[in-house]
Amino acid sequence: MAQTDVKLLGMRPSPFVNRVQYALNIKSVGYEFLEEKFGSKSKLLLQSNPIHKKVPVFIHADKPICESLIIVQYIDEVWSSGPSLLPSDPYDRAIASFWAAYIDDKWYPALKEIRLAEGDEGKLVPMGQVVEGLALLEAAFLSCSKGKSFFGGDSIGYLDIAFGSFLGWLKATEKIACVKLLDEAKTPHLVGWADRFCSHDAVKDVMPKTEMLVEIANILKAKFRASAPN
Amino acid sequence: MAQTDVKLLGMRPSPFVNRVQYALNIKSVGYEFLEEKFGSKSKLLLQSNPIHKKVPVFIHADKPICESLIIVQYIDEVWSSGPSLLPSDPYDRAIASFWAAYIDDKWYPALKEIRLAEGDEGKLVPMGQVVEGLALLEAAFLSCSKGKSFFGGDSIGYLDIAFGSFLGWLKATEKIACVKLLDEAKTPHLVGWADRFCSHDAVKDVMPKTEMLVEIANILKAKFRASAPN
Repeated sequence: MAQTDVKLLGMRPSPFVNRVQYALNIKSVGYEFLEEKFGSKSKLLLQSNPIHKKVPVFIHADKPICESLIIVQYIDEVWSSGPSLLPSDPYDRAIASFWAAYIDDKWYPALKEIRLAEGDEGKLVPMGQVVEGLALLEAAFLSCSKGKSFFGGDSIGYLDIAFGSFLGWLKATEKIACVKLLDEAKTPHLVGWADRFCSHDAVKDVMPKTEMLVEIANILKAKFRASAPN
Repeated sequence: MAQTDVKLLGMRPSPFVNRVQYALNIKSVGYEFLEEKFGSKSKLLLQSNPIHKKVPVFIHADKPICESLIIVQYIDEVWSSGPSLLPSDPYDRAIASFWAAYIDDKWYPALKEIRLAEGDEGKLVPMGQVVEGLALLEAAFLSCSKGKSFFGGDSIGYLDIAFGSFLGWLKATEKIACVKLLDEAKTPHLVGWADRFCSHDAVKDVMPKTEMLVEIANILKAKFRASAPN
């Protein structure tokens, strides 16, 4: 049941919003989802995140918190119900934060570029970057998971959420570009991890369907084209 | 005295390297400074930070940690000597992280753009962004410091380090562009905070001299011009 003082301002196809949903589900925290409309920004959003004017915004006891990974960390610190999301060891925590930043700053922008690129040739460079990044993340998985199911060990943790939130968009991008990016032969452990993540109880009903994301990607691409200078 | 298992791979004019130095000084942790040369990358750097190949790299007990703010958080968690850098309250911690990310992702890139812009006209937009950012940070200071000397309260904390590390480059940029950006009339509390930060024992011998940064900025600009497409 939703706690009356826990609200999430978001849009369901946003991987950044999904991160917060996964974290709340893992901690068994009920919340009210306040849906933002595509193409407009509510008064509450503009009031709660005046700097970036972006979802997600997490509102706990009337206090807004912005930026998805900061929200996930806040949820981990405030609710001790359910497993810890951040590793308990400071070095492991630093490594998880490092990879989460890598995913947001380098890997996901390349994935996005594939979707926006014109023609097959324009897709080549970002596709190389995405595949190279997946190889790095395969190695990171082996090192972080220590033989267990998730980056976080036996249960989904911070880095699982940071990376896993993009799996829906990864599948949609594979469909749009007619290419296999997450490949059993090259990154077998990541493929297994992705299956476990997507079918997890905290995730499966939240992760947007691939077909819907493909449709949204087409709309966004048309908008991007219309606004790009000739 | 330097602890034999604490090493910092860096360059002294780098604000990101300075962050780690300030954190170590506040915690009274001695360390060995391994100086990287301008224009080349040591084998140790490439081995320790193969993903980004950038300083700072902090090496503790032979384990490398990258990304300045992640290192500062690690130092805070490992050494309980000296005051805490991150606020103890989860909400305050989230707010400090939010502003630190704003400074790195929005404010500092605008400051850098002023230095790289050609002619007075090109400087106008980033100058506006920097001044607007300072007004936001003045308000954040009033809210975070709760009437005390620093963002972190009575002592220098995480957000002081994140923002304060750029004060040398802010002064150098003011000199280069012949403009006052941090202005007593508009942001009186930040001006007072900046004075306190720069004269703090943990900071004053580390922060690079303005004249040296102006010289480095000129070298970097010439390099940038040479590499930019016509």
